[in-house]
Amino acid sequence: MGAARQSLRCTRAGLSAVAGVRAAGVACGLKKNGRPDLALVVADRPATVAATFTLNRVQAAPIQVSKRHLRGGRFSAIVLNSGNANACTGPQGLRDAEATVAEAARILGRPAGEVFVASTGVIGRPLDMAAVRAGIREAARALAPRGGGRAARAIMTTDTMAKEAAVRFTASGRRVTVAGMAKGSGMIAPHMATMLAVVATDAAVQPRLLQTALREAVAASFNCVTVDGDTSTNDMVLCFATGAAGAPPLAAGTRAFETFRQALRQVCLALAKMIARDGEGATKLAEVRIQGARSAREARRAAETVATSSLVKTTLFGEDINWGRIMAALGRSGARFDPERVDLWVDHVPVVRNGMSLGLRAESAANRRLRRREFALIASLRVGRAEARLWTTDLSEAYVRINAGYRT
Amino acid sequence: MGAARQSLRCTRAGLSAVAGVRAAGVACGLKKNGRPDLALVVADRPATVAATFTLNRVQAAPIQVSKRHLRGGRFSAIVLNSGNANACTGPQGLRDAEATVAEAARILGRPAGEVFVASTGVIGRPLDMAAVRAGIREAARALAPRGGGRAARAIMTTDTMAKEAAVRFTASGRRVTVAGMAKGSGMIAPHMATMLAVVATDAAVQPRLLQTALREAVAASFNCVTVDGDTSTNDMVLCFATGAAGAPPLAAGTRAFETFRQALRQVCLALAKMIARDGEGATKLAEVRIQGARSAREARRAAETVATSSLVKTTLFGEDINWGRIMAALGRSGARFDPERVDLWVDHVPVVRNGMSLGLRAESAANRRLRRREFALIASLRVGRAEARLWTTDLSEAYVRINAGYRT
Repeated sequence: MGAARQSLRCTRAGLSAVAGVRAAGVACGLKKNGRPDLALVVADRPATVAATFTLNRVQAAPIQVSKRHLRGGRFSAIVLNSGNANACTGPQGLRDAEATVAEAARILGRPAGEVFVASTGVIGRPLDMAAVRAGIREAARALAPRGGGRAARAIMTTDTMAKEAAVRFTASGRRVTVAGMAKGSGMIAPHMATMLAVVATDAAVQPRLLQTALREAVAASFNCVTVDGDTSTNDMVLCFATGAAGAPPLAAGTRAFETFRQALRQVCLALAKMIARDGEGATKLAEVRIQGARSAREARRAAETVATSSLVKTTLFGEDINWGRIMAALGRSGARFDPERVDLWVDHVPVVRNGMSLGLRAESAANRRLRRREFALIASLRVGRAEARLWTTDLSEAYVRINAGYRT
Repeated sequence: MGAARQSLRCTRAGLSAVAGVRAAGVACGLKKNGRPDLALVVADRPATVAATFTLNRVQAAPIQVSKRHLRGGRFSAIVLNSGNANACTGPQGLRDAEATVAEAARILGRPAGEVFVASTGVIGRPLDMAAVRAGIREAARALAPRGGGRAARAIMTTDTMAKEAAVRFTASGRRVTVAGMAKGSGMIAPHMATMLAVVATDAAVQPRLLQTALREAVAASFNCVTVDGDTSTNDMVLCFATGAAGAPPLAAGTRAFETFRQALRQVCLALAKMIARDGEGATKLAEVRIQGARSAREARRAAETVATSSLVKTTLFGEDINWGRIMAALGRSGARFDPERVDLWVDHVPVVRNGMSLGLRAESAANRRLRRREFALIASLRVGRAEARLWTTDLSEAYVRINAGYRT
């Protein structure tokens, strides 16, 4: 009964499902509307940690501090605030991120080097440190094993729902959990986004192994989701392993580790899809699948070009398969193919064969699929065997409304 | 009094201002709403010709036919239809484009190889050739030296206004005119777009010289304008030279040729800006200027990333300088720079110095500029001397409305 054969099922539980983790979410006044805006997540004992960060050249102060602390490989806590990104805030921003860490370390009695920090919200405004300090004190008092849900709510910005996911499996006879929380919901693009995620596991995993597994999981999940093609200055996915499940440390190459990798990927993918589904103004979640490309790189570029095309995305909102826009996006993607050999489907419904319409009846059938909340756009280039898969949303009038008025 | 010192002024005249040109625009039924949808432009005598075409791998049938005819270097006429792009229409589409050319050639009594064809509209629908043939016959009867305005109206799709521009100068004592028409208005992106333009001049210019001048002018105009980052299957800019002004042929390296180049660039830039201003749902025209980049390529990439960012474009629509989004776009553009040295302006109003806000008063002053119809977003990276300039529009709710419902 090898662990790799366990069928993994994803549930809507969050950090509260992981042994050895306490969390809290409070309102400290960074958001003017009084909503929760500061989350604290603590490992009962120092845990191992891995993280991936935005590739944007402009990196917010908390990213710089957390990157430095990652080198130590140990995790005690993370402070996350919403409402203010602490980005483009210069030396003062860096001092504020460090002061946030120091305050949490002091109150929790942990080394500052094991405390991480993440922020999301408006760029270029100084952080209200009095509010942050008060928030940390209040959150520390509120820490609870069942506080994961409150933490998940406290990191929301324009998100309309809290995002949590969990997967359980058995390793060495112990029940092991991987669970996490995330927030979107604009600036969502491959290579990280306005996106924060904290994933915890009660498995025991060495930092290097954890980093490998996380990098892989992020590549197959958060980096395959796009809302608006933008990439923020604050993105961060952090994963810590408490070992509190009591199972022996996972070793590379074992079935138990394979199951863990799979569970981690599943949790990340579930969170990533929630982010897309809850993308600003999104009413649809579309999987863009490119098949038969010359190379994985060309498949990926073709998928990205289709998934980020404003014209394709408005077509999805309009629920009318204007497939010429998909052809045009493929054509400018740089992928090599013969337009007169391309096939397109919506889910299992064929729309285009050899670059030409299969007729109005086929298009009507495709339009019926587009009326659903979720569907796949599939393009077969028929020049090779490489594939790529991305998730995208439609572009609605609400996206514009939200983003034109976000700051005011 | 060298020709190069003439100050060139752009007017709203169009093809009708060019000697040796007749044009017409008629409604032949391709558009269901009965609006004009077929234009015919004819040179009284065979002219020289140059053209640039979409770089999209998916190329509409008329593009394929016109590309072939360009090799001959001679121009008698061009048929342009709106309402149907004749793209992704397979072998039948190619036969239809050829039949269009043949019909015009027959009626005008000119060689088919000197007749060009361009289409814009919905992709993937067969062209109604009975309508096109009737339209060509009617347009041929309606041809007139003052028909340029009607031709400009007949190539519109979602454009809200006809686009014409003209520049006059003196060469060898003769009054020479360069004038043209264009249409937008979605899928507008660098490297050509859903964009057709026909420019004529009564100067005499050899095809190779004309091609050089046109390629340069297009690079500095149509390829510097973006509405939605998409690039269509049908884009084409064609320029023909009738020589009817009576001036001797322009020779490379002469002042007269330099003035012609400048005039051509000015006409193209005027048309390109009209396209951007009339971009689908656009309420603003923003010049994105990147200064102090390491290389021209990096400057261009930075400008493109800012100019196509949905978050930046919604900010412009919202008239609130959320400059963090500009920083974030610069940061993911691939251009090398130090975020803590970047300066930003809106027109002459400084907003960010050394990567940080100059305060709320500066931002308010910038917001007052954003309330105008036209302004410049200027970013100085301060790591080199390279520059780039692009024009973009805001992203409005109307863009979504237009594009979600376009086909139905």
